[in-house]
Amino acid sequence: MLGRTYDGQDCSAARALELVGERWSLLIIRDALFAGTTRFSDFQRSLGIAPNVLAARLAWFIEAGLMTMEPVSEDSEPSEYRLTEKGTELAPVVVALTAWGERWVDPIGPIVYKHGECGGLVSQAITCASCGEEVQPADVVVELRTPRRSRPSARRH
Amino acid sequence: MLGRTYDGQDCSAARALELVGERWSLLIIRDALFAGTTRFSDFQRSLGIAPNVLAARLAWFIEAGLMTMEPVSEDSEPSEYRLTEKGTELAPVVVALTAWGERWVDPIGPIVYKHGECGGLVSQAITCASCGEEVQPADVVVELRTPRRSRPSARRH
Repeated sequence: MLGRTYDGQDCSAARALELVGERWSLLIIRDALFAGTTRFSDFQRSLGIAPNVLAARLAWFIEAGLMTMEPVSEDSEPSEYRLTEKGTELAPVVVALTAWGERWVDPIGPIVYKHGECGGLVSQAITCASCGEEVQPADVVVELRTPRRSRPSARRH
Repeated sequence: MLGRTYDGQDCSAARALELVGERWSLLIIRDALFAGTTRFSDFQRSLGIAPNVLAARLAWFIEAGLMTMEPVSEDSEPSEYRLTEKGTELAPVVVALTAWGERWVDPIGPIVYKHGECGGLVSQAITCASCGEEVQPADVVVELRTPRRSRPSARRH
């Protein structure tokens, strides 16, 4: 896995990528999120990746708290991998990637995301918590914040 | 680059990951988007990655239409890498990753995203285009759509 590859990057996006930035990771999460996939063989069939790669990703997701695994039961049912809340909340990332791919990459994808309750198309937006308006990418500004953990390099003298 | 690594994955998220799923890619985009970074040396300093890796990513972004490069001018100013609209519209992906990292990974990140116009915190949500409500991840359903391009394997007989 990426481990501490992004060391020195004090940014939550980098931390997130340490957990889900490895090849195939977000597609495994996508299948678990939106196709309801829970079994190793179903992930493998859907993604067509090498079993050892899939096994490594799933083991990492469990270690990182993104998934839990129900062990093989007495009646020999296969193990089931289920997203935790932490894993489930990656949905906006997958939806944002999908929306971008739809718009900018040859849109051959047969998948659309819909709102279960009313059937409307689901889209992803960034909004302002203060004024409530949708924020355009060009109107996002970055602000440095005092780190919550004290760090020697950040201390004032 | 990933190239056609995700071949067989007829999904816009997979297509998007072919363009921006390689290690460091989204952090380079993040710097270009929100830190206003345009020069090779500034990306390199901010990210601390090997110059050959950075050069490969930037060349790929240009090839993929995510960035343009202004060539070295007559007065020896360094080249500038600038996001295209295609690249700029990755902002929601970076914001979604950041928000998830803030919530679920040890939040040491000193970066917050704000709305330039009013200064409010920017957050990211998935909403329904039909009813306008915010959609919870668990209430997103997937629907298969007829591919826009005819493909032999998808033809009916």
